[in-house]
Amino acid sequence: MIGQHADWIGISGKLAASPGREQSKEVHAATVRVIGGSDPDHYPLQKKRHSLEFLREIGHLRPRSRTIGAVTRLRSSAEMGVHRVLHDNEFVRIHTPTLTANDCEGGGETFGVTTAGQHAGGAPEAGFFGRNVNLTVSGQLHLEVYAAAFKRVYSFNPAFRAEPSQTGRHLSEFWMVEAECAFVDSLATLMGVAEELVRATTRHLVDTAGDELGFFARDKEALAALVRRLTDREPYPRVSYTEAIAILQRADATAKFAFTPQWGRALQSEHERYLATHHFGGPVFVTDYPADTKPFYMRPNPDGRTVACMDLLVPGPCELMGGSLRDHDHEALGRRIDGMGFADGSLDWYHSLRRFGSTPHGGFGMGFERYLQMLTGLESVRDIVPFPRYAGRCQH
Amino acid sequence: MIGQHADWIGISGKLAASPGREQSKEVHAATVRVIGGSDPDHYPLQKKRHSLEFLREIGHLRPRSRTIGAVTRLRSSAEMGVHRVLHDNEFVRIHTPTLTANDCEGGGETFGVTTAGQHAGGAPEAGFFGRNVNLTVSGQLHLEVYAAAFKRVYSFNPAFRAEPSQTGRHLSEFWMVEAECAFVDSLATLMGVAEELVRATTRHLVDTAGDELGFFARDKEALAALVRRLTDREPYPRVSYTEAIAILQRADATAKFAFTPQWGRALQSEHERYLATHHFGGPVFVTDYPADTKPFYMRPNPDGRTVACMDLLVPGPCELMGGSLRDHDHEALGRRIDGMGFADGSLDWYHSLRRFGSTPHGGFGMGFERYLQMLTGLESVRDIVPFPRYAGRCQH
Repeated sequence: MIGQHADWIGISGKLAASPGREQSKEVHAATVRVIGGSDPDHYPLQKKRHSLEFLREIGHLRPRSRTIGAVTRLRSSAEMGVHRVLHDNEFVRIHTPTLTANDCEGGGETFGVTTAGQHAGGAPEAGFFGRNVNLTVSGQLHLEVYAAAFKRVYSFNPAFRAEPSQTGRHLSEFWMVEAECAFVDSLATLMGVAEELVRATTRHLVDTAGDELGFFARDKEALAALVRRLTDREPYPRVSYTEAIAILQRADATAKFAFTPQWGRALQSEHERYLATHHFGGPVFVTDYPADTKPFYMRPNPDGRTVACMDLLVPGPCELMGGSLRDHDHEALGRRIDGMGFADGSLDWYHSLRRFGSTPHGGFGMGFERYLQMLTGLESVRDIVPFPRYAGRCQH
Repeated sequence: MIGQHADWIGISGKLAASPGREQSKEVHAATVRVIGGSDPDHYPLQKKRHSLEFLREIGHLRPRSRTIGAVTRLRSSAEMGVHRVLHDNEFVRIHTPTLTANDCEGGGETFGVTTAGQHAGGAPEAGFFGRNVNLTVSGQLHLEVYAAAFKRVYSFNPAFRAEPSQTGRHLSEFWMVEAECAFVDSLATLMGVAEELVRATTRHLVDTAGDELGFFARDKEALAALVRRLTDREPYPRVSYTEAIAILQRADATAKFAFTPQWGRALQSEHERYLATHHFGGPVFVTDYPADTKPFYMRPNPDGRTVACMDLLVPGPCELMGGSLRDHDHEALGRRIDGMGFADGSLDWYHSLRRFGSTPHGGFGMGFERYLQMLTGLESVRDIVPFPRYAGRCQH
């Protein structure tokens, strides 16, 4: 089914055993008719190998190319795998909203919404909803509402970021799997759930989309080895941020990082890449980052300096997942919300979840395109989504 | 699992056979501890029966109510059912975009997008994407791109309409299942696919969410009968628009419609309700509407007056699905696009799909909330979505 279609033809005839080496059956055609013709002189997809950049310019025809064809089938199977794995583990699927009055990460590069025909300096959407409304950057806060009622919940939704950078690492519209679990009191339990999602979804792909995985791993032993590693039973290694910094500092003499690894600073992409690709050679959880580098809702550790969080780093896209325990203490969270400048009441509903039957809980998110980027080895995330949107680009 | 939670408690003890009549097992508690307390004097959900309107005012607590709890589980199972049924029938899942430069239905109540912090009369998003961008109203045109490469494709995405009406029939953000099939030359074939989606998804719910279906159908024999009708093997009846008008005209003397049924006019809700609820008493396809009442992309019938389209009407929400064959003729479609005022080139990509290996094809969309509204008998669609958005309302 992978091929560069031009003409569509209809063939009637007899299916028979084939003497050919490369096929077991053949059709003895009685009639052949053209269903939809295509002038080969004008058809933009030729038999030669096209660059992925060129294919992006003909977004309405590129699904007929071998690479985009394989990505598309892999995406479809991967989503099915995610749903199966989470339903099998008693997660309830919640349709968290796209339109939201909240901004989970606390400000930054969000898109706003206006009413129709009002693009050019026209009336803001406040007229329609009675308040300013954004496109969601994460469904986490909304999922926490439902986790308090259903124990295990997840969403599989588009998310949005008005990221101005012009690299192949970011999309303005992307898909995320987010999960939230009540009655989870340890990061280890949460990492077990996250790891099982990656392992079981990837096994589902091995079973249902082996041809597509093979298409991308052809001549790339590292990719094939990564799939084996993701799916085997061995737990993914887990190191604390503090241990990770020590590993990076020891490596700095030879790796010569552009940014010196130092406790208290965020990990840079080069650091994450070193850990996943060189030091561990596969997926690795990094846990317990400094509180100052992370959002307000994460649960503080007893050391007073770090929070109970984890990132799953992998070869390729580096950060595949991020998650944490959420602070379920009504007073402590309230003090932090006030201190962060959210004292306008917009988070009262979120805060009050801690007042009425709060439980220890936690969750994580996985970038769906990043997951597929890891499995395909494709350099640009623009080739992983059917109609990519990024700064300067919204065709069709 | 359906109940109105307040305190969360942890119980350790021994599971034993119960002498009680209403349960087979019981726990002999050794220890009971409160995990998350909740002051009963302040907890908004009390044991008494709350109205759905009241529950909407406490959107972050209402998932703990019996009704919203049951809707949520039904939603989750229904989405899983849709994915299973379509994957089992070799549909490829396509993540059609939310952000689009197109407006499938040709103008109307769409939301626009701006960059962050620019709500109040600030710069339009044209600065970010280089053009005006809307929130999608339908993924159909984008699905047609992928149907031309994969034969059968579908999406399950949020869609948006800046519908100003304040009834319980409309949401600003809702979910749709849309499917598109290449090599389909007859409406009958397309209706067969649509019907199978409804039948098999509903069967999946009977198997996996029987308790929830029963919760809503309790004391409502009409609902239970509808589920039986949707899932039995008998094809859903099919009548043409012309026949439907004749039925309505014969009924008008007793039904006393506010709008007189007349060939050439759109069917009103009261007409659809009469057909589904009274005349057919179950699902019914109405086909071949007058061309003037339908969008430009539908395939004209040989009679020159009607188009090859179908609506599936059902008791409850009335219109559950809408679909059509798409005009795959390059010249004919081009003339219509020009005549409709789309001569600005914004549909060139869509039009050119007919130039390069066009095939007869068609598709349909199903409103996911309407599907659930049909099965639950809930009056307002606002109680079917986790966080409803409509004119004047975007909490959380």
